[in-house]
Amino acid sequence: MKHVLENIRVVDFSRVFAGPDATQILGDLGADVIKVEDPEGGDECRYLGVTRDQLTALGGPSPSFRALNRNKRSITLDLSTDAGKQVAVRLIESADVVVNNFRPGTMERFGLGYEAMAKLKPGLIYCDFQSYGPVGPLSHIGANDLALQAFSGLMSITGEEGGAPARAGSAIVDLHASLGIVSGVLAALFHRERTGEGQRVDTSLMLSAAHLMSYFYQEYWLTGRMHRRMGTANHLSVPNQAFPTRDGYTVIIAPSDEMWARCAAALDPEKLGIPEYRIASDRLRLRKDVVAAITEVTMKLTNAEVHEKLSAVKVNVAVVQDIGSAADHAQFEAVGGVFRRPGSSGEEQRYVGTPFRLHGTPGEITRSPPALGEHTAEILAEAGYGEAEIAALKAGGAFGE
Amino acid sequence: MKHVLENIRVVDFSRVFAGPDATQILGDLGADVIKVEDPEGGDECRYLGVTRDQLTALGGPSPSFRALNRNKRSITLDLSTDAGKQVAVRLIESADVVVNNFRPGTMERFGLGYEAMAKLKPGLIYCDFQSYGPVGPLSHIGANDLALQAFSGLMSITGEEGGAPARAGSAIVDLHASLGIVSGVLAALFHRERTGEGQRVDTSLMLSAAHLMSYFYQEYWLTGRMHRRMGTANHLSVPNQAFPTRDGYTVIIAPSDEMWARCAAALDPEKLGIPEYRIASDRLRLRKDVVAAITEVTMKLTNAEVHEKLSAVKVNVAVVQDIGSAADHAQFEAVGGVFRRPGSSGEEQRYVGTPFRLHGTPGEITRSPPALGEHTAEILAEAGYGEAEIAALKAGGAFGE
Repeated sequence: MKHVLENIRVVDFSRVFAGPDATQILGDLGADVIKVEDPEGGDECRYLGVTRDQLTALGGPSPSFRALNRNKRSITLDLSTDAGKQVAVRLIESADVVVNNFRPGTMERFGLGYEAMAKLKPGLIYCDFQSYGPVGPLSHIGANDLALQAFSGLMSITGEEGGAPARAGSAIVDLHASLGIVSGVLAALFHRERTGEGQRVDTSLMLSAAHLMSYFYQEYWLTGRMHRRMGTANHLSVPNQAFPTRDGYTVIIAPSDEMWARCAAALDPEKLGIPEYRIASDRLRLRKDVVAAITEVTMKLTNAEVHEKLSAVKVNVAVVQDIGSAADHAQFEAVGGVFRRPGSSGEEQRYVGTPFRLHGTPGEITRSPPALGEHTAEILAEAGYGEAEIAALKAGGAFGE
Repeated sequence: MKHVLENIRVVDFSRVFAGPDATQILGDLGADVIKVEDPEGGDECRYLGVTRDQLTALGGPSPSFRALNRNKRSITLDLSTDAGKQVAVRLIESADVVVNNFRPGTMERFGLGYEAMAKLKPGLIYCDFQSYGPVGPLSHIGANDLALQAFSGLMSITGEEGGAPARAGSAIVDLHASLGIVSGVLAALFHRERTGEGQRVDTSLMLSAAHLMSYFYQEYWLTGRMHRRMGTANHLSVPNQAFPTRDGYTVIIAPSDEMWARCAAALDPEKLGIPEYRIASDRLRLRKDVVAAITEVTMKLTNAEVHEKLSAVKVNVAVVQDIGSAADHAQFEAVGGVFRRPGSSGEEQRYVGTPFRLHGTPGEITRSPPALGEHTAEILAEAGYGEAEIAALKAGGAFGE
């Protein structure tokens, strides 16, 4: 087998970020992913964050949609009609995995809930993804990435010391949840392969955010301690933050005493190599002094100079890059992090690759992000619908107006 | 089978965050995880972020270590000795999965590299985790979570508008990478179950961070646009950020025009329900005005009042909580997000659970985080070493001094 998920079919009712990203990864691994979209515009991510003019200039869906929807086919179905539901049921019957991110109870209202579908298709793996999870006092509250950055306490520790809360600039709770879905589905597939049993899988923005906050919750539960915003610094060690340079910012991390000794010697042995700073717990205690002393040195150097001095002695160091420098960095390319494929007009387009690599069965890109309903006819034909049936479904509103 | 990973053994040479968190999740799913630690203090995470006094008061390892190391057994091995290496080889021979986060080439120097181990144990799944990956110009540079927040561009979009870069307050790149490892290992296990073939898996802080930044890279590649810091706001929609209230901050998210209409009507129809703000692309264009108008309203209300008004009309809303309110929230408990187990003195301890749920084969906690080398004797006996052999290994320095 060339791909891990050869002959595995995923029917994906999810929209926006976490679900689509997860099924894209399953698609990278070789699954046949069918994206079910509402005929009224489809996945709203197609238009997210761009003006109408920008969309026209792009000649296709939004950058976010493209980042999350390669390696899948799109079919439009109106799930509020009986005809649309009927097609959805037939697709699920042909599937190994179902993913959705409707609010709790919605799939059941469509007649597509887990209990009914598992009876129809033994061994089915059925993944719900929700904001706060399927039960509990907040289960019916909608949310997005930002809401869970706030709810989880992440925002309370992000931003300037004493300042307003800030968000992690990217939708990290959503994209982390994607790998929660992927992990859950792969675990369930492994279990099915060994036992024949399918099962329900679920995760949520809340479980994703809590996982990202786990060591803070653990400390709070053990000691009652709650950390606060610290700019780029953190409570674990010193130095472990960004320092200003002549031309930007560079982060310097020297948590162990050995690494700190090398760091001090390379930057300024006289100012930094003093006994008061030698022990990690003392550096934590004297945080302000240590940071001020390092800053005095870095302010006189460029990013490149700090990087050179410290990487030469194996101290962890990294320049605060902008998005372009990061995306185009030779290291990212070197490890196979960039997937390439011709776009609609033949020009090569780049995509961020699968976030892990399987050397024997590498992920790859075989399909560009689909147009809305691009594969409706093809998928219906594969599902065994004849022309007359399709006409009847159409009359029944299965594909919208 | 009660657990997905019953009869799967993981030998884990990794330290600090991503690797240990990943093998903890594999342990939650039922794997037998053997944590190999250096006799000289073991995983440095045992002491991370706490002073000696705090460690003494805790009567055990650091909160971070406890958050990442349940469901595993600890053996101490000095891999710089032949005797230590010999035991490591025997453990790998008994394993299905190996995880390590040494710098590239280190496992090979120990005689524990992939090629050699795969010959010894056909079907072995071998996961490398590194900072920037196994090849490329930066492959030998050390890094941590913060370095990749800087390198990836995440820090360039985190923090106040026009201000200094900030970090996402938690080690999100590390903990996200954990699920990259879990996904890669589960995919490889599934493949082995279908084909008998093992393989090498790898991921890195760099691939983890790039995945979290994927839609920003995509936009940059397509349009050249690079976003910048925006406090709690983002470029995708308005309103989608934190607003100050009488007693804190609450995030309000209304990306669609329908949700915005409900939001405006619930908060202040006169000020907010105006035609100029009705369309998403106009709200993006008039961002400053819209934000100022909403702020004027929220400043007069409490967090609870904003939450009540907006959740009643199904607008996404969440209070910016501190760590304690988040960790202790009833919703987190309701969805099974909290695992419990008696600590060493019998009192119940809480842990953040697995970040996804398998309803047929739920994850659970069966072992508290181990003391350093707690299971050395037990693991050696299981591996078939007799008393005389163990004495010889000890004399050879396998377990340190």
